[in-house]
Amino acid sequence: MRVAIVGIGMGPQHLTREAADALRESDYVLAARKSDQDGLLAVRHAIAAAHGLEVVEVADPPRDRRRGSHYGQAVAAWHAARVGAYEEVLRERGGKPAFLVWGDPSLYDSTIRVVDELSRRIPMQVEVLPGISAPQLLAARHRIVLHRVGEAVHLTTARRLREDIAAGQRNLCVLLNASMDLSALQDWSIWWGANLGTDSEELCSGRVGEVVAEIERARARAQQRAGWVLDLYLLRAPDEAP
Amino acid sequence: MRVAIVGIGMGPQHLTREAADALRESDYVLAARKSDQDGLLAVRHAIAAAHGLEVVEVADPPRDRRRGSHYGQAVAAWHAARVGAYEEVLRERGGKPAFLVWGDPSLYDSTIRVVDELSRRIPMQVEVLPGISAPQLLAARHRIVLHRVGEAVHLTTARRLREDIAAGQRNLCVLLNASMDLSALQDWSIWWGANLGTDSEELCSGRVGEVVAEIERARARAQQRAGWVLDLYLLRAPDEAP
Repeated sequence: MRVAIVGIGMGPQHLTREAADALRESDYVLAARKSDQDGLLAVRHAIAAAHGLEVVEVADPPRDRRRGSHYGQAVAAWHAARVGAYEEVLRERGGKPAFLVWGDPSLYDSTIRVVDELSRRIPMQVEVLPGISAPQLLAARHRIVLHRVGEAVHLTTARRLREDIAAGQRNLCVLLNASMDLSALQDWSIWWGANLGTDSEELCSGRVGEVVAEIERARARAQQRAGWVLDLYLLRAPDEAP
Repeated sequence: MRVAIVGIGMGPQHLTREAADALRESDYVLAARKSDQDGLLAVRHAIAAAHGLEVVEVADPPRDRRRGSHYGQAVAAWHAARVGAYEEVLRERGGKPAFLVWGDPSLYDSTIRVVDELSRRIPMQVEVLPGISAPQLLAARHRIVLHRVGEAVHLTTARRLREDIAAGQRNLCVLLNASMDLSALQDWSIWWGANLGTDSEELCSGRVGEVVAEIERARARAQQRAGWVLDLYLLRAPDEAP
């Protein structure tokens, strides 16, 4: 069995030539059905249809998001359930399946880990095709570089933000945002974006203290227009302009 | 004047649909001629030719790489000289130029900063199209995610590596490699790649202490086959497997 893990960026406009070629050589698309992200599933359907591929939907197992639950354990249990669901489909359908990954498979996506586990159960060759990631589109929209000249950028999650800043990080790109509390960072600069690459895209940048209310409004607008919101931002400490 | 900054990934196979569209709407390609990277210039020529575009080469100003020279100052002086050289061409040619950026414009590339400066001298609208970056292709080739579940990845440069590890970083993607000294990191895991996406691509992964000699040989092989070498790697502290 040959499996393609295809990064699709933020939509069909980001499909690379090699990703399109990989889809042409695939037999069908496997996609998780998440109740809260129908918009993303619709994009996968559109890309599959454009390449003449059927989408086999697999119900995404519920994930334990209760406050206080252990993040790593909750994710592990969710992965295991997902692997089981996919295994069933792959054994039944065979052929050359493709997984369409929103953004890039190497950043905050579980497909590679799920397919790793599947490859221990079903003999398969796996090819990964990179896709445009959300931090790249955020930077492109704001026409910025993600780091200062010759310096580093720390890609992290909203859950880890406080800890990473306490550890001295001064230039961070924050993904998997849930709710922002930037009250301690009034003087920092922020470049923020939501639902990038879609009709409900929102952008905002400036000093945190000056734009945080505007960001909250834009975030609510994106949520209302799309029915879902995926946002991220670059944060940079003061006196360290680009 | 309308200027497109187009990320081309590691070659034509990575061109996104919107990048191809932007090239079709451009009048010519502006490209720096660097004496040590003829291979990259050849790729730009191939992409431009495929879209019927002339390449206007601009000699890249020399950069002060002497030991002991201040990195930030050397880069600033180099940028200023580059801006002057591009300004001359833009004033003479006008039209809709495109800059082709190896990888992605948001990571360790100076084009956005150069065009920012140009836009203060010549009225222009600037659009940035993201491209596949080397860290993404590295991850795709090794079929890994760049970070552990829910954790961070620190994108940094070889110059900063020692300092970043001293500051507690345990999962780093290292770009702009020049010469590797990983002798203090024998037990760490490394996923390394050179000249990714080209005929001279090399890959190697394992425990640093076990593979560092193999990496040195592979690096020399890439340099010999291509005449240039661009390599990067992901480093992860021990007992923190994916």
